[in-house]
Amino acid sequence: MNPGRCAACRYLRRRCPPDCIFSPYFPPNNPQRFVSIHRIYGASNVAKLLQQLPSHLRTQAVDSLYLEAQYRIEDPVYGCVGLISLLQQQIHDLERQLAMTQAEIAFRARHPQAVESSLLNNVGNPSFSNQASSWFM
Amino acid sequence: MNPGRCAACRYLRRRCPPDCIFSPYFPPNNPQRFVSIHRIYGASNVAKLLQQLPSHLRTQAVDSLYLEAQYRIEDPVYGCVGLISLLQQQIHDLERQLAMTQAEIAFRARHPQAVESSLLNNVGNPSFSNQASSWFM
Repeated sequence: MNPGRCAACRYLRRRCPPDCIFSPYFPPNNPQRFVSIHRIYGASNVAKLLQQLPSHLRTQAVDSLYLEAQYRIEDPVYGCVGLISLLQQQIHDLERQLAMTQAEIAFRARHPQAVESSLLNNVGNPSFSNQASSWFM
Repeated sequence: MNPGRCAACRYLRRRCPPDCIFSPYFPPNNPQRFVSIHRIYGASNVAKLLQQLPSHLRTQAVDSLYLEAQYRIEDPVYGCVGLISLLQQQIHDLERQLAMTQAEIAFRARHPQAVESSLLNNVGNPSFSNQASSWFM
């Protein structure tokens, strides 16, 4: 056994050549990283992808492949597309909240007397924001 | 040539068996879908993944694999992790804007006279929101 073999060559039970495409990104002390990537993409697909990239971009490519592989292992149906949907929903909710809050400011500017007493009584009351927002829905 | 072969079996130049794992998700009229998935994951990895899932979840799994494969083909370095970073940055920006806007409402409620004249003169002026927000930074 060659203790200098990278994690990929160890997993694939092969000799680790001096110009191994995996070696710089899969050190022997972190075998799990290659196991996950291999399980989802297969060694030859990852090797092909890395070979197409300039070497200064390969670390980022392996990092993102590993992240996607982890998501796919955790959620075999949606992978990281599940996270993308969740983030898009979060953006939609925040945009809606922001639009309502901005409308609230414009409304208060145009009707200072109408809201002044409510404001002074309710600032700091978390339910007030929802109540006030309902004026603009 | 068997015209009934699915897009995967056509691409792999093999017979399409009646219980083909790919056939329900890769109709012959959409060959590109399998080409993209095959390029990133390889046929055997996709077959393995589908076999592990109950059949009612396989369409969603193929859809998400196709989306991830497309992102990886367009951006071989970051794949859909690039989109995830972008969405996370957008959420961070929106949360910051929302917090500032909410602080603005609270400030105006506590100091109605201080901002009333500015408000009446500046509502509708896009630069005012930035100016007003700077009070709370």
